[in-house]
Order: sequence, then C-alpha cells, then structure tokens
Amino acid sequence: MKKDNAIVLLSGGLDSCVTATIAQQDYELYLLHVNYGQRTDAREEKAFKDIAKFYNITQILDVDIGYLLEIGGSSLIDNKIIIPVKSSEKEIPSTYVPFRNANLLAIATSWAEVIGAKKIFIGAMEEDSSGYPDCRESFFDSFNKTIEQGTKPGTTITIETPLLHRKKSEVVNIGMELGAPLHLTWSCYQNVKKACGVCESCQLRIKAFRDAGLVDPIPYSIEISWKE
Amino acid sequence: MKKDNAIVLLSGGLDSCVTATIAQQDYELYLLHVNYGQRTDAREEKAFKDIAKFYNITQILDVDIGYLLEIGGSSLIDNKIIIPVKSSEKEIPSTYVPFRNANLLAIATSWAEVIGAKKIFIGAMEEDSSGYPDCRESFFDSFNKTIEQGTKPGTTITIETPLLHRKKSEVVNIGMELGAPLHLTWSCYQNVKKACGVCESCQLRIKAFRDAGLVDPIPYSIEISWKE
Repeated sequence: MKKDNAIVLLSGGLDSCVTATIAQQDYELYLLHVNYGQRTDAREEKAFKDIAKFYNITQILDVDIGYLLEIGGSSLIDNKIIIPVKSSEKEIPSTYVPFRNANLLAIATSWAEVIGAKKIFIGAMEEDSSGYPDCRESFFDSFNKTIEQGTKPGTTITIETPLLHRKKSEVVNIGMELGAPLHLTWSCYQNVKKACGVCESCQLRIKAFRDAGLVDPIPYSIEISWKE
Repeated sequence: MKKDNAIVLLSGGLDSCVTATIAQQDYELYLLHVNYGQRTDAREEKAFKDIAKFYNITQILDVDIGYLLEIGGSSLIDNKIIIPVKSSEKEIPSTYVPFRNANLLAIATSWAEVIGAKKIFIGAMEEDSSGYPDCRESFFDSFNKTIEQGTKPGTTITIETPLLHRKKSEVVNIGMELGAPLHLTWSCYQNVKKACGVCESCQLRIKAFRDAGLVDPIPYSIEISWKE
C-alpha cells in the first residue's frame, strides 16, 4: 500500500535529521529547507542536501526568504547582534527569530495542501529552544487550528512534533538506534568548516552526545572531552 | 501623542488601499507588500508604491516569496491553469492560492514583533473572496491566537479586518468618503496596462463601482457601461 505523503522541515541540524528518520518509517517524504539569512546558511543547506541524498529523496523544496534578515531582530541573522555563549535562564535569547516557525509552517502548509500531504514534521524541542515562544506545544496546537480554518474543506494536515518533549541526549540515542545520518548534520551557529564548539548551539549538541555516552561524529575546531 | 505603529498589508488593490486609508487615521503606518508570483506582480507593485507615496510613507517592506509560485496549485500564479471568468458558486475558484494569507500574516507578524506594532491590517473581504478559506473570520480569529502563543510574552499584536463583512460597493463608498487614492489602485488579474474588464477580479470591481453609483477612475481595455 502506498504510504501517505508527509513534509519534513529539514534544516540540516541534529533534531530535524532525527525527525526525518522517524518520519520516513511511515511516510513518503517531501523535504522542505528554508534559508532565512542565518549566518551558516550555506553549510546548513549542504547538510540538508546530504541528508536528502542519504535517504534518496528527490521531492525537495529549497526556499529563500531573505525578508527575515531584512526584518532583523535576531542575533542568528543580524551580524550587529552578538551571539550569546550562554543564555540567561529567564530571558528569551537574542538568537530568537521573531515568529520564525510560523513562517516556516505556513510555507509547509501551502505545499502540503497542493501535494495532499497529511502531516508536517518539525523537529522542535522545548528543552532545546531556550524559551522560544514558537517552540511551545500550545503554539503548535494553535497552528493546527489555524490550518484547519485556513485550508480547503476536507483538507487534513496536522503538525507532528515527535521530539518536542525529549531531552537532546534522547534525540541522539533515538537517532543512533534508527541509523540517522548524524555525521551529515550541522548545528554550529558560528562556523562553517569545523563546528566552533563554543556557541550555544554547539554547547547543547556536545552536552547531548556526552549525556548519551557517545562521541559526536562531526569535526570541531577545538578539542572536546567526550567523557563527563 | 505619538500614534501606535500598525502594519498594513498593501497589495495595491482597491480593498487594501481603502484599508490603509482607514488605518492611517489612527496609526503610524508600516506598509508591507508581497510579490508571490501573481501574473500582474509588477503592476501591483507599482500601485503599492504609488499609494505609499500618496500617503508619504517611507516605512515599507517589499518582499518576494517566489516559493508560492514553485509550490503552484493556483491559476493566479500558474500559467498552465486558466483564470475563470466566473466561478461556480459552490467550488473554491482556481485563483485560490493555498494558505496564502497565513504566509502573508506570518511575515507581517515577524515585522510587527520587531517594530513593536500593535495591529496588522488586512483588507480581506468574505463577500469578495469567493469562499477562500483563509479569508474567513474564523481563520483570522485562529491566527490571532497563534500570534499570542508564538510571540514573546507581553507582545500584543492583533489582526484587524475592517472590511471583512462589507459589500464591495460599500468599500468603494468608504474609500471615496475618506479620500482614498482609488485612481492609483490595480485589481486586474490579467493585464498590466489597461484593466481587462473581463476577469473575475475586474468584474467584481466594476460591479462595485456600479452598485456604488460611481465611475471607476482607472482605464479599461473594453468599454464599460457604468449605469446599471
């Protein structure tokens, strides 16, 4: 029996790679990558393409939305704002890109409606997201209702967030168990050749592999101790 | 006292022009125009710029989102699908661009969060929209909840749809009363020099001026009788 279609938002990072690995077990995948002016755009795009190739998926949509850069307001895309090494626990970090996930999910929903996909997978994680408002379960629940109201009658598209309540070390373990190509992923916000090992995204990734008792297969520009 | 900021989604059409005219009475305006590959893109963009100039507004964001064209599924952007002269009453017409308004509102919300705007004005009309699901009040209500869930705590952005339940002839009358620059607007889906007078969008516009007892100030490529 033919599998239903599903779209996966695949940045090329660890979480979206594991999400794609989960989704491909039950669905025919369509992969969506969005460049929005993040500093490591080209490196992430390469990771996206490598993962698509690994799974032999040719149904891909690779989109540029430069307007988020023009709008600004985030250190992830604005060179004038410094990327924090560690965020305060209380404040939403400067890497937050205002309402980014809604922009990504709107694109995915337009595509899903045209190709008749039933699901949109996104690798969002509450733990990992440092309080980004558009990574909360209540946001995704609300977006599902907006899809229901804003698409043609009879359309049934829902957002799936299989990692939302997982720890990042669990994500590493799930990925390893399912044979996800973690060696092809990229998480660093700062560098493009070897991961810096210092930015918040690297630190979260390193800690996750350590907690999982594993060594990260990607190269770092500084020496990392993989034992706790 | 300084007015609050508001964003207006300004396509350059009749409805968005009247919406901007209403909004500028009470708000400091930021104008957002989105090219998404509609056939009359360049003509609409000119109308947008002319209206911005008319109101002396320099805070503008002019965005290209070519991905909707790539996704396809609408006669408004896909040359392979014929634009209907008149839609069936029951079916959603082929000019429907899947989940378009969610894409536009997501962009507007990102911008609103950065500039601290309180309102996003959109000139959607239920009557005019031929059953487009993303023009219904329930869609905008749901999107407001999604904004609340997906933006930073303390953010208060709401979508305003002042024309949603108006007849198009009322919109013409409101625009005339408030001095909206209707002569600068563009509605035709088909042509860029003189409006075709035949496509669905032209027909709705012509009927609106007729019902309002007025003559449309823009040029048409066929002779139009303005009396009922």
